[in-house]
Amino acid sequence: MITTLGLDADDTLWHNETIFRLTHERFCDLLAPYAARDDLLSRLSAVERRNLSLYGYGVKGFTLSMIETTMELTDGQAASSVIREILAAGRDMLAHPVEALPEVEATLAVLSERYRLVLITKGDLLHQEQKLAASGLGDLFAAVEIVSEKDRATYERVFDRHGTGAAQAVMCGNSMRSDILPAIEAGAYAAHVPYVVTWEHEMADAPVDNPRFAELPSIADLPDWIAKIS
Amino acid sequence: MITTLGLDADDTLWHNETIFRLTHERFCDLLAPYAARDDLLSRLSAVERRNLSLYGYGVKGFTLSMIETTMELTDGQAASSVIREILAAGRDMLAHPVEALPEVEATLAVLSERYRLVLITKGDLLHQEQKLAASGLGDLFAAVEIVSEKDRATYERVFDRHGTGAAQAVMCGNSMRSDILPAIEAGAYAAHVPYVVTWEHEMADAPVDNPRFAELPSIADLPDWIAKIS
Repeated sequence: MITTLGLDADDTLWHNETIFRLTHERFCDLLAPYAARDDLLSRLSAVERRNLSLYGYGVKGFTLSMIETTMELTDGQAASSVIREILAAGRDMLAHPVEALPEVEATLAVLSERYRLVLITKGDLLHQEQKLAASGLGDLFAAVEIVSEKDRATYERVFDRHGTGAAQAVMCGNSMRSDILPAIEAGAYAAHVPYVVTWEHEMADAPVDNPRFAELPSIADLPDWIAKIS
Repeated sequence: MITTLGLDADDTLWHNETIFRLTHERFCDLLAPYAARDDLLSRLSAVERRNLSLYGYGVKGFTLSMIETTMELTDGQAASSVIREILAAGRDMLAHPVEALPEVEATLAVLSERYRLVLITKGDLLHQEQKLAASGLGDLFAAVEIVSEKDRATYERVFDRHGTGAAQAVMCGNSMRSDILPAIEAGAYAAHVPYVVTWEHEMADAPVDNPRFAELPSIADLPDWIAKIS
């Protein structure tokens, strides 16, 4: 019955949010003379949220938001070394090695023999392509969709295009808001595999009463769950 | 014989490079106290080129490159108002109204009844989607491919996926380097419709002796040319 498996990339297949968190710390260290840590992070978050409709998701927009926050917080008096450091931090994120999460490769190898695997991810187009190439996982996927937003229409379109429709598809990811809720809305099954930390923007309540939803401790639990619902 | 028509977006369907050029002027005005115009532009170009493999194409990377150039040129002593102005210039570019080029809409309306139209464009994913939506041309396209690079493999893949292969496809665009040469290499026909200005990165010699190439003064000449080669 299940023909197609959609997989999120960042924090589902490889580390991502931890790299953002490390950059948050670097940002707080740089701006420590100007504001307290909590204030810095909440202002950065507000600027990111304000810019989301213009910048979309990804490291380049995040870097621009860090610079904008710096200008606001320092009333434009930040040392230029701070701006240079922020630019360097953004470049470091883009060039960061891709570290696959445990059990991902072995699990996808099994799943790719049973279902059509489709990578569905947000973020900067070039960066996501580069991460997939660096991960060595590219050959396991029948299709890759880098999208600007993950909503119900996205999952309907992607599972129609690359599979046999959402009703015969499973989506697996770490974000309740982007991977689980809209996939369920589209009529697909959805398995939430949490990551150690979650970007606050991606948090939402789990659809615990929905029979098409599962909370799995590890991606390694995915083959058994899909076999059970098939 | 021709089934599919690929169309570039920026500077083929709507104005783009002129908006970059206006931002160049704004950048030169801001940094006039630090360096002469030609020096500013050649340094900005060098920084853009250096960052291309990390940032890819689009306004966000361009904005980051303007900030980086400012830091270099002012030895980090730029007034913070300059950085704020550059951030604002980037946001203005992203929010700039989309102005379709003359004859585009009427020509595409005719062509979309004869061929499968595929939009093939580089740049920031979200921004390109927003421009297409704002242009009102979206319904004329059977498919949209926002890609990180336009090379031979890109055209082979896109025309296989959305058409009947490159041999039965025409690519039309303003960039010799990105729209024409790799499409010809892939085995497609290619029509160059020049824009009033060209980003230096996109310049290349025309394949004048290739029978699958045409130089057209206007997109309005496209239907006749395709009819002739079909």
